[in-house]
Amino acid sequence: MTQLESARSGHITDEMKQVAEAEGICADYLRQQIAQGRVVIPKNTQRSFAARGIGKGLRTKVNANIGTSPSRHEIEEELAKLDAAVCAGADAVMDLSTGGDLDSILKKILERSGVMIGTVPVYKAVSRMITADKACPDLSADDIFYEIEAQCRAGVDFITVHCGITIETMRVLKECSRIMGMVSRGGSLMAEWISKNRAENPLYEKYDRLLEIARAYDVTLSLGDGLRPGTIFDAHDRAQISELVVLGELAQKARNAGVQVMIEGPGHVPLSRIAYDMRLQQRLCGEAPYYVLGPLPTDIAAGHDHIAGAVGGAIAAANGADFLCYVTPAEHLTLPGPKEVREGVIASKIAAHIGDLEKGINTALQRDKKMAEARAGFDWKAMFEQAIDQDKARAMRTQSADKDRDVCTMCGDFCALKTYARATKKNK
Amino acid sequence: MTQLESARSGHITDEMKQVAEAEGICADYLRQQIAQGRVVIPKNTQRSFAARGIGKGLRTKVNANIGTSPSRHEIEEELAKLDAAVCAGADAVMDLSTGGDLDSILKKILERSGVMIGTVPVYKAVSRMITADKACPDLSADDIFYEIEAQCRAGVDFITVHCGITIETMRVLKECSRIMGMVSRGGSLMAEWISKNRAENPLYEKYDRLLEIARAYDVTLSLGDGLRPGTIFDAHDRAQISELVVLGELAQKARNAGVQVMIEGPGHVPLSRIAYDMRLQQRLCGEAPYYVLGPLPTDIAAGHDHIAGAVGGAIAAANGADFLCYVTPAEHLTLPGPKEVREGVIASKIAAHIGDLEKGINTALQRDKKMAEARAGFDWKAMFEQAIDQDKARAMRTQSADKDRDVCTMCGDFCALKTYARATKKNK
Repeated sequence: MTQLESARSGHITDEMKQVAEAEGICADYLRQQIAQGRVVIPKNTQRSFAARGIGKGLRTKVNANIGTSPSRHEIEEELAKLDAAVCAGADAVMDLSTGGDLDSILKKILERSGVMIGTVPVYKAVSRMITADKACPDLSADDIFYEIEAQCRAGVDFITVHCGITIETMRVLKECSRIMGMVSRGGSLMAEWISKNRAENPLYEKYDRLLEIARAYDVTLSLGDGLRPGTIFDAHDRAQISELVVLGELAQKARNAGVQVMIEGPGHVPLSRIAYDMRLQQRLCGEAPYYVLGPLPTDIAAGHDHIAGAVGGAIAAANGADFLCYVTPAEHLTLPGPKEVREGVIASKIAAHIGDLEKGINTALQRDKKMAEARAGFDWKAMFEQAIDQDKARAMRTQSADKDRDVCTMCGDFCALKTYARATKKNK
Repeated sequence: MTQLESARSGHITDEMKQVAEAEGICADYLRQQIAQGRVVIPKNTQRSFAARGIGKGLRTKVNANIGTSPSRHEIEEELAKLDAAVCAGADAVMDLSTGGDLDSILKKILERSGVMIGTVPVYKAVSRMITADKACPDLSADDIFYEIEAQCRAGVDFITVHCGITIETMRVLKECSRIMGMVSRGGSLMAEWISKNRAENPLYEKYDRLLEIARAYDVTLSLGDGLRPGTIFDAHDRAQISELVVLGELAQKARNAGVQVMIEGPGHVPLSRIAYDMRLQQRLCGEAPYYVLGPLPTDIAAGHDHIAGAVGGAIAAANGADFLCYVTPAEHLTLPGPKEVREGVIASKIAAHIGDLEKGINTALQRDKKMAEARAGFDWKAMFEQAIDQDKARAMRTQSADKDRDVCTMCGDFCALKTYARATKKNK
């Protein structure tokens, strides 16, 4: 039975107990949320690690994308990126490799990872074609499902499947005057497949077959947003929304089949429309967990897109996004290395935490409160313990000229807290 | 005549022409905004540099705080920080030095700077006391005004004055159960002065004298928020709002006297209350330009407070903040060096730009559009030209394995734009 089926049958699984304890909530309440499809626990039946939940009432989770590219594919670097992501606090890692020995890379990542692992199976299916001097449209439907099943058997916990790229949504896209067309790798591959084969997307047409595979391993489906905007000017056009409608229908079908499902979201969105995007997804997709990439509220932060992503991610999380896919400083420029992975995860953790304060997550509120009390009491040890990035906070303080005093080097004897303490003391 | 007096008399000054041209707006429209006190042009009558405006209808501006501390005061490092700030795009720099030869430091900064310079005059007045083995409460009202006039004569363009710390607002503060008390350096010094001398704040009681000095040099008053919250839990309490009411009254008096004025704001504010804070300030202060510090929507981002500050700053700017004071990664830990100054300015520039997109600033919208078009056309040169941090974007691309190809190393041959182009081509 999948987590969803167990929840519906009234059974609280070990994974639900782990998640409930980690989140500080009642296990039966969690079970109800899972039963309604508002929370998922992505964990392949073959894998063993501390389960984490994604969805309503839970802490906002963070994903880090790693993976090789055709021109850069060292397995050691990918493992270093995995370690950097997990060490910085990532709740999930996606292996999006498109270069090198893909089977071996995924196997090593699965072996090493203590967090949930996601993939986009079509990447590997297409890579096999390219190696054989063929292209994506040469894949048969069987080839695609074969690859999906192989990755589920290998142990992945969630997979991105671009089921919403259909003959109809592609038709809608062609009527939209987008600047950027399609910016989803997996989505554009399915678009090419449809176009070349003049046939419907197998992931849509044979969706039941996909559900069977996912159910067998309790792999969570992450319905990819192939039509996400690639610039704020393309956001929320008819193409994007028509795909979201399809994803909402498919999410309902997945739940009916006992398969856990979440929805992927943008992308590039103007600031004031981010909250609206969250509300629309909740309504159209029956509150299925929402997994957003960024969002980026500007297109010109290249080299610092993790900061633009933190702005969008904080607002998204505050308005209901459940799962943030990080953006690194390398986005739009090059493949991130371990340093950029770390920076990306930290920025997303900050955004997720800001969202959690607005969601009223008790542990988040307590953590901020402890930080404020530590500051008021000049308790540097306690400050470091509460910081999202303890290592960096400690390192900056250690370099400081006043590291052995209670004040910081910013104000020294001009410390406002001390001055105000003198002011109130004298008045007694 | 001050810029405000000129504007009211119907005269368009050279500074107004410069600002109108830089912003791409009509000079007479700008003059009207200045006449109403909705825009200021901080520029001392003694100084010569390209004037910039702050306020409604203009691009959101960014300030970088630099300055020595008692335990770290090398003039060369301050000049390096000034250069780093201006090079990264700061529109203003505040010299908040509290250690070393303060007169000489300010003089050198004024000589070198091509942007407006602000100070907090009470810091230097108190530093003189400390050198003489005395303390802030030993200052006479004359000492304080003497220092203010000296700095105006030296050429500063705007000064922070904590006029809203009064016997009454301090009384209100004592009835509030704050975790952090006071976190404003200048504010806490005035609190100590009031408490020790059992007398009213001279900056409040003798406000007319302050106005006379400011008017003589057309120095813009920046009314400091001494009661800004130091944690999200202290935000928007009666102390903060009672001070804002006083600042609104004083802003009106300044305008009546022909003196340009802006209002300083928080600080630490929960995400969902940032927009509300902007609206309240606009209402209480007659739409005087609002100069906010951050705001920081979480307390636990130590080491990365520039990212938390960008989140808050973007929302603040989108909702009407006119001037963002940066926060650096060193905030709450140590004094920033040139590297942290640069990172802080870039993060604030991103926030300001995101705000400008929401404000409908045409140049901001055009810049994002050019970036999207450059990406769609694989025009790397044009992408770098539009990036907020051209140097970093270019450097990351240069390290990339695919730097001589049109694609990036992230996707390589899996580029979605190219795949989609193939998909649509085949269909013709």
